[in-house]
Amino acid sequence: MNIDQLFSSTTKKALQNDPPGEWMPNIPANCLRLSSGFPAPNVVPVTELKQAVTNLLDQEQDLPLHYVGTPKMELLPEQIKHRLEQRALSFSSDEILVTAGACQAIDLIARVLLDEQSVVAVESPTYMEALEMFQNYTHQFIEIPMDEHGMKTDELAHVLAERKEQGLPMPKLLYTIPSFQNPTGTTLTNERRRHLIKLSEHYQFLILEDDAYGELYFDELPIPLSAMDTENRVLYVGSLSKVIAPGLRIGWVATTKEMVQTLFWFKKDLDHPFAQAIMSQYLNENPLDRRLKELRTAYKEKCDTMLEALEQYMPRHVSWYVPEGGYFVWLKISNIDTSALLDDATKNGVSFLPGKYFFLHEEEGREWLRLSFSYEEKEEIQQGIKRLSEVLSQM
Amino acid sequence: MNIDQLFSSTTKKALQNDPPGEWMPNIPANCLRLSSGFPAPNVVPVTELKQAVTNLLDQEQDLPLHYVGTPKMELLPEQIKHRLEQRALSFSSDEILVTAGACQAIDLIARVLLDEQSVVAVESPTYMEALEMFQNYTHQFIEIPMDEHGMKTDELAHVLAERKEQGLPMPKLLYTIPSFQNPTGTTLTNERRRHLIKLSEHYQFLILEDDAYGELYFDELPIPLSAMDTENRVLYVGSLSKVIAPGLRIGWVATTKEMVQTLFWFKKDLDHPFAQAIMSQYLNENPLDRRLKELRTAYKEKCDTMLEALEQYMPRHVSWYVPEGGYFVWLKISNIDTSALLDDATKNGVSFLPGKYFFLHEEEGREWLRLSFSYEEKEEIQQGIKRLSEVLSQM
Repeated sequence: MNIDQLFSSTTKKALQNDPPGEWMPNIPANCLRLSSGFPAPNVVPVTELKQAVTNLLDQEQDLPLHYVGTPKMELLPEQIKHRLEQRALSFSSDEILVTAGACQAIDLIARVLLDEQSVVAVESPTYMEALEMFQNYTHQFIEIPMDEHGMKTDELAHVLAERKEQGLPMPKLLYTIPSFQNPTGTTLTNERRRHLIKLSEHYQFLILEDDAYGELYFDELPIPLSAMDTENRVLYVGSLSKVIAPGLRIGWVATTKEMVQTLFWFKKDLDHPFAQAIMSQYLNENPLDRRLKELRTAYKEKCDTMLEALEQYMPRHVSWYVPEGGYFVWLKISNIDTSALLDDATKNGVSFLPGKYFFLHEEEGREWLRLSFSYEEKEEIQQGIKRLSEVLSQM
Repeated sequence: MNIDQLFSSTTKKALQNDPPGEWMPNIPANCLRLSSGFPAPNVVPVTELKQAVTNLLDQEQDLPLHYVGTPKMELLPEQIKHRLEQRALSFSSDEILVTAGACQAIDLIARVLLDEQSVVAVESPTYMEALEMFQNYTHQFIEIPMDEHGMKTDELAHVLAERKEQGLPMPKLLYTIPSFQNPTGTTLTNERRRHLIKLSEHYQFLILEDDAYGELYFDELPIPLSAMDTENRVLYVGSLSKVIAPGLRIGWVATTKEMVQTLFWFKKDLDHPFAQAIMSQYLNENPLDRRLKELRTAYKEKCDTMLEALEQYMPRHVSWYVPEGGYFVWLKISNIDTSALLDDATKNGVSFLPGKYFFLHEEEGREWLRLSFSYEEKEEIQQGIKRLSEVLSQM
């Protein structure tokens, strides 16, 4: 029998508009991985996590292995609350919902807010997984272009005014990564941040602020949109994936207590108590502030290495944005199809992510590519950029 | 601002029909917990899991802590495939999707198949969390009554024939726990299993077979519905929560390769690689067959203790079903409101789950309650039943 016919109306539309298929290019193992948006292997705290698991199970025995978890796990919102205070954000622990990574937070928010009538405004380009999660519910998007200072809020203002005038449906939700964006690495200026908040108040939309990279600033901590929000319009999503370990899947959303309760209602059977207890134990035993300081220095040095290598090796038709934190450098190579380029690049032992993966309309990403300086070490980064330039010069 | 107004149409309906609120009674800590559907603390393999984590991280370092996980985690479908072979089920590993517990499997299936037009047939009573997950998408249910042999398939046949005749919408999905059901502990007879499969073929509906307790039979392994299915109508959901540890959240759905691919599309950003790698390492190091044999013996003894205590202490207006496996005994106490009884019972130091939690229409569960023999030890079980009978005799 053909199960497809039994899919729900929403699923049918989601599959039609965004059919399952290639969602990441296949990168050969022997490449220098400038494609991977992962923490570097040597900064993942393997020993400390191993110790945390041992101590947790020694102290709490079977407790963290049951459904309802352990008091350790209940500490986690409190620990996240203290992290947020470092970012000028004041939430009580019942305004914080721990999720399985930022992705579960985005998924829950999409699930609770969006249906096929909903319009979502997104940066263009943006984080592909978030786009895909929104596409499970709606296909009405407003794409806001970016420049080196993040989302062009004047363009957003223009589009919104026009839609209002024409009586078109207005966005319910705007999704943004204001700091060290994925994939562009750009940071929204404070002026644009204030503009965006004003627009959300005027046009009555919510903002999903994805701040997964926020703690990885090089020089200056950007002020989260959430800290400028006086009307509870910002759902603040964060994660420990980029600063501790992605595989534990610990993220959160900070919002009103009422919204936390509703989101919880849809996730309560999708909890992961053991991972939460491990993370809480780890955070208790390992001061995060010192670690973050080390990470910021290490990633800044790797970013500088990448930027220097780009200056040294890249031909003139290649340009890029200079990031102020995070993991990524976003490159434009005029008159080159970066998807085709990837084949040659991997043959020459280096990988990147073609721009097409970050746009609703793939062709818009044709001349762009994302480089990541998070995963490889400095020498490999330099070598990788050199290899990429060799491929370019042969074209 | 009032975020409620921005909820999606589906969310609004879900919250209206099933408002967030009390979803489990608050059980004081000093009670004998005949309410808890958890494995007994002393059978949770704490030491072995601690060892598995240590070995995993020693062998694979940071690999299991990244997004994409580790080869260990990729072994898990293969390991589950071998488990299913013990149950007369033949699936290839790409027909198995590992999920965060059986709950994520049920949630994904509901998400992909159900919308507000969908009719779902459920056992009455049934597993409350599954009901709630279905209610996130639809509010059209057909409730099929149970007796000591599981779902009354003749009632199902009757309802379906009647609906067909009257031109009413037919069910798209039927949810059943055929073996050692939660909450009734009953097992569907083989005759009824065959009848159910026939009905699914005749009326063209899918079956979500939740077999979370299947491996915990006392004497005889029940044949899964999936093994009788020749038209790929059964989505077979299982879990290691009841036999190893719930907190790791390892479950699965076994179905066609195409369906696995679609379900994966909706869960790919909601993966939990570290937990999967731990489970795979644990299974490699600890033969599950021996463990299962021990668990079956232990739970059978605890069940016998509970049944003997019920015989010894309970007054005549109390009756129950005798389980052939699993965790639960389902009691009927004529003319008693079991929700009110719980207050008195917890004051006397024993807990249970009132029947109302397992019915769409709470009042139908008024005279029923679920006892669990999984969590407490034999002496405590006997003591718990004695305490419960004391409360009853004072009413």
